[in-house]
Amino acid sequence: MLNFSFANSTQIHFGEQQISTLSSNIPTDAKVLVVYGGGSIKKNGVYDQVCEALSAHSWGEFSGIEPNPSYQTCMQAVELVKRDNYDFILAVGGGSVIDGCKFIAAAACFEGEPWDILAKGAEVNSALPLGVVLTLPATGSESNSFSVVSNKETNDKLPFATPLVQPKFAVLDPNVMTTLPKRQLTNGVVDAFVHTMEQYLTYPVDAKVQDRFAEGLLLTLMEEGPKVLADDASYEVRANVMWSATMALNGLIGAGVPQDWGTHMIGHEVTAVYGLDHAQTLAIVLPRMMAEQKEAKREKILQYAQRVLKLDVSKPEIAIEQAIEKTELFFHSVQMPTRFRDYQLGEEVADAIVTQLERHGMTALGEHQAVTLEKSHRILLQSV
Amino acid sequence: MLNFSFANSTQIHFGEQQISTLSSNIPTDAKVLVVYGGGSIKKNGVYDQVCEALSAHSWGEFSGIEPNPSYQTCMQAVELVKRDNYDFILAVGGGSVIDGCKFIAAAACFEGEPWDILAKGAEVNSALPLGVVLTLPATGSESNSFSVVSNKETNDKLPFATPLVQPKFAVLDPNVMTTLPKRQLTNGVVDAFVHTMEQYLTYPVDAKVQDRFAEGLLLTLMEEGPKVLADDASYEVRANVMWSATMALNGLIGAGVPQDWGTHMIGHEVTAVYGLDHAQTLAIVLPRMMAEQKEAKREKILQYAQRVLKLDVSKPEIAIEQAIEKTELFFHSVQMPTRFRDYQLGEEVADAIVTQLERHGMTALGEHQAVTLEKSHRILLQSV
Repeated sequence: MLNFSFANSTQIHFGEQQISTLSSNIPTDAKVLVVYGGGSIKKNGVYDQVCEALSAHSWGEFSGIEPNPSYQTCMQAVELVKRDNYDFILAVGGGSVIDGCKFIAAAACFEGEPWDILAKGAEVNSALPLGVVLTLPATGSESNSFSVVSNKETNDKLPFATPLVQPKFAVLDPNVMTTLPKRQLTNGVVDAFVHTMEQYLTYPVDAKVQDRFAEGLLLTLMEEGPKVLADDASYEVRANVMWSATMALNGLIGAGVPQDWGTHMIGHEVTAVYGLDHAQTLAIVLPRMMAEQKEAKREKILQYAQRVLKLDVSKPEIAIEQAIEKTELFFHSVQMPTRFRDYQLGEEVADAIVTQLERHGMTALGEHQAVTLEKSHRILLQSV
Repeated sequence: MLNFSFANSTQIHFGEQQISTLSSNIPTDAKVLVVYGGGSIKKNGVYDQVCEALSAHSWGEFSGIEPNPSYQTCMQAVELVKRDNYDFILAVGGGSVIDGCKFIAAAACFEGEPWDILAKGAEVNSALPLGVVLTLPATGSESNSFSVVSNKETNDKLPFATPLVQPKFAVLDPNVMTTLPKRQLTNGVVDAFVHTMEQYLTYPVDAKVQDRFAEGLLLTLMEEGPKVLADDASYEVRANVMWSATMALNGLIGAGVPQDWGTHMIGHEVTAVYGLDHAQTLAIVLPRMMAEQKEAKREKILQYAQRVLKLDVSKPEIAIEQAIEKTELFFHSVQMPTRFRDYQLGEEVADAIVTQLERHGMTALGEHQAVTLEKSHRILLQSV
């Protein structure tokens, strides 16, 4: 096991009717800016529940945070925060809204050009307190300190992280998933699955707890993922997917183990250039990343094959191929395509994305920094 | 899955040489009272590491916190804190020292009779900040808000809990386990195992993540427990046991699931009356609690049999008996006796402990509050 420091201070309020806890979770003297996306929360009842819970608070709202939240939109919210002196941000949405709100919370307190937080890693010294009502389980952003924001003018999609934007609390009510479009459920399941794989499928360091927790999340997502897409999905299925997605990226399973994130780095560039959903890019890249890195990841792929996929690993080479194939089939089982051609993209992708990777300094990806631009190019070509 | 609220704010610093992080984890202007037990930390180098890390701090010390920390000893520390105006408590020890320090931290700020915190559940409104250097993995106290303190004059062993005594940080260096007596290692493994069982072996609520995390801890403790007792135990084995013990009672695996704790309630009384180590009592009671409650726990015992013990469950009645037997054999595998007679105690235990349970209102234990005094009596008799 590697040395680590870990804490997760976000107070999770999980279950039915938990949105009502907002009334006591936000200081009564706070001036709250409720931030959300395209307005689906007004159709599914979440907005009404938030309004009711905030009836004793002073609050306003900002809508229009888009998928892959843009710097430009976030800065409009920052201006509103400054103009009207909001001092608490409540994100009501999925990972994009939460990521956007983390940037808003930091940028509102930043002296200088906020773009530098993303582009230059400028230090964040303070941020407004942030709370979350999660409407789409996927990214884990509701209980971590990471954020990814896009600049639509420059095709950049860049991350930042600071404990200062870790949400104070997150409300997770599985009932909010009832009206989600299937595409968003699919994205959520795949995103959580690949987050887990990025922290699990590397090389062994004898971290038995972390490995088994990761395997528990993978097993649960494989079991519940297809079920959550059914029209008659139960509350319990939704609850298991929602809690898995949060646990997949709250820092716990990655504490003390090597991490990969190569699939994510390549995927981010695909979203920036071609506009595919984040999870769509992960499902395309991961199987080819596994194949390209199958020697470096050999032991963990076999452990995954045995413990998660219940494959016979007595013939390792066959088991590894089966593990990769079954991973891709799992994505298909949750209605997720796994090829660029499914999005009318061809071999041109490889050159375009490698150019982007090079521009962003992503020339050595993965747990061993062994995925060179040449290997990324091959991964992309084989993903067509 | 049941509704839940969960957070764990304790910053874990895990690994080799992490004791040195004390220098930056405790505010430089704090006046620190270092609290420890019987002095083993002076022999194994931990005391010296703490001294070195605190070289820039103002600090003093209080030693003599005993196993099953006593109210009387803790109150001596409280007097010292008040007299010399300490404003930060650093617990250096195992669960007893940490539990004692939680009470010291709360009692030092309490207006009124501190015994009321334990005896009457008097509300704690403030507490001194608390940090931990863990020397014995077992109780999970290093990252939770629970404490159990004994009154040696009255034979009471009573719990209290408040987020105000949740440690700010906990340093977990597996190397501190190198010089631990085998009895303490045995206790730690059994304690962590039974903590997990208390939150797992109840009835199913379709909480797949929590179940699999608990199973991961049980599997790890069963694999690593016997190994950690060997003279040539590796760092990795120690690390896995240490992290399992913390995860077993930091609130995570118990969030959203029913919990039992009947074995603990009976065990506490056994320690109070007969002075057995906490874990020794758990190993005696748990197998009989499983047998007594085998119908109420039927589904989860079978899940445990299948997933943890890898038993054939096609004949459920046989599998249940085997699961109970193998649990007891696991305790033996870590050199832990499982009968009162191993401590020269006989049938007299049943009446004595039931009297204590009655006195403390423990008349209906377990996840269904179905373990009456009559059933507790039978469990105790069958444990002789």
